[in-house]
Amino acid sequence: MEILDGLTERKIFKMNSNYSVEKMDIVAIEEPMEIAIKYIEKDHTNLKTISITMRTPGHDKYLVLGFLFSEGIIDSVSDIHDIQFKFSCTPEETIEQTVVVHIKPHLIHRVKDLNRHFYTSSSCGVCGKTTIDLAVTHCHFLLKSLEKQISLDTIYKLPSILKRNQKLFDQTGGIHACALFDFGGQLITIAEDVGRHNAMDKLIGYCLENHLVPASEHILLVSGRASFELIQKALTIGVPALLAIGAPSSLAIDLASSFGMSLGGFLKDGSVNIYSGIQRFNI
Amino acid sequence: MEILDGLTERKIFKMNSNYSVEKMDIVAIEEPMEIAIKYIEKDHTNLKTISITMRTPGHDKYLVLGFLFSEGIIDSVSDIHDIQFKFSCTPEETIEQTVVVHIKPHLIHRVKDLNRHFYTSSSCGVCGKTTIDLAVTHCHFLLKSLEKQISLDTIYKLPSILKRNQKLFDQTGGIHACALFDFGGQLITIAEDVGRHNAMDKLIGYCLENHLVPASEHILLVSGRASFELIQKALTIGVPALLAIGAPSSLAIDLASSFGMSLGGFLKDGSVNIYSGIQRFNI
Repeated sequence: MEILDGLTERKIFKMNSNYSVEKMDIVAIEEPMEIAIKYIEKDHTNLKTISITMRTPGHDKYLVLGFLFSEGIIDSVSDIHDIQFKFSCTPEETIEQTVVVHIKPHLIHRVKDLNRHFYTSSSCGVCGKTTIDLAVTHCHFLLKSLEKQISLDTIYKLPSILKRNQKLFDQTGGIHACALFDFGGQLITIAEDVGRHNAMDKLIGYCLENHLVPASEHILLVSGRASFELIQKALTIGVPALLAIGAPSSLAIDLASSFGMSLGGFLKDGSVNIYSGIQRFNI
Repeated sequence: MEILDGLTERKIFKMNSNYSVEKMDIVAIEEPMEIAIKYIEKDHTNLKTISITMRTPGHDKYLVLGFLFSEGIIDSVSDIHDIQFKFSCTPEETIEQTVVVHIKPHLIHRVKDLNRHFYTSSSCGVCGKTTIDLAVTHCHFLLKSLEKQISLDTIYKLPSILKRNQKLFDQTGGIHACALFDFGGQLITIAEDVGRHNAMDKLIGYCLENHLVPASEHILLVSGRASFELIQKALTIGVPALLAIGAPSSLAIDLASSFGMSLGGFLKDGSVNIYSGIQRFNI
């Protein structure tokens, strides 16, 4: 199959009750892109970073135009002199992904007055590698070695336990959840929120208050997809395994893998895709 | 049914091919909350807002603790002197939702050095009402009156057209999409991204480049849920109808309703819930 732009491949272990297959699977790329505004005032060239967003590469020009317009920074395409894409990468890593938008003088005041911030991700770096390196500073705990294992039979039961305990989802049909289990599959706590980062922050707050940090013999389960930022947050409480009902992004896989965290996606009753840390599972 | 904390009711029109019912339905509350850090230095009390996030009320203390910990601002609960919740509201509106976290002196440098920004939403205001009022400044176009109507039969066909055209989702099983249709149900363009705001920004950028703004006779369809911020972005291109495969939040409904935008959720082949602007549909 031809891999479309914006997608990439990662090795997975496709597991179910009867078999496990090691294969390459296609995942969505998640990569940070920085938007910087260039404006010239009194012969001086200024650059102001206004956004660092985690995005899927492709149609980046549209993303920049749409972002600047929908956030009220430009009124039309003609407000822009030019857009420079400063993208560079080696086969191993992305070095730079910055878009420099040179705007016309009449909009300079809008950029200078910008008192809202659009760092839609809390990632510090802009290239994938740096992003992962910097995530280290956030991580308070080293993930424990593999004395204890998690049985696949246990994790196959988690989605139905999650579902039974999603009280707010049950009444609305639309809200994210994040749950903590022990290695035996016992539910410790669950948090729900319209924002998936909030749901995880609520869960982390619960762990802090209840002396559950480091959560070194626990499993986190998220109701949606696994993004870079969710892995980053999960690492801060030292949880060794994160499972998602949905798909993980490329950067989520790479981050989990760098830290030796076990990451599973598409978890269902009876099947799961393991993207990293397969050795923590008793198969 | 008892309505749980974090949820509220809104009037909906539940439509399918055979009937329409007007009823109250339960939706997740989405409301902004501001986190401000208080620290005392040289007898002077300082307040620094570090985050405004759209969240579902409930377990706010956990949210605050988890956020501060996972973002590396505190190392434990004991780093905090006290937390004050400055929440006030009338029956009609939320006046203030600010959490003031008084931190201990040894962490002051972290707060002062904070050069990352966590305004996870681009909303300007903190209370729901203000948020909606301020959204007006973003809106370039008044939504057109209702000369033309959209047929329900047309919108019931959109999910399958969306699905057929989600090329990246097709290969990964996990990526957001946002699509633009005309009133006749013809697909104009589709954008995909790991971030749902990015998907909409890409679509808005396409519209700008292709002189489709204002998109006054168009329908936007999003593959997931409808949040406040997606409605806000959609309003900037003057699109009169937004449909979601998933659920809308309370604030998304209120914003759409204030602007006379038609908002539908849980769209499937043969059924939809209409939350505002029912008169734009030919039923």
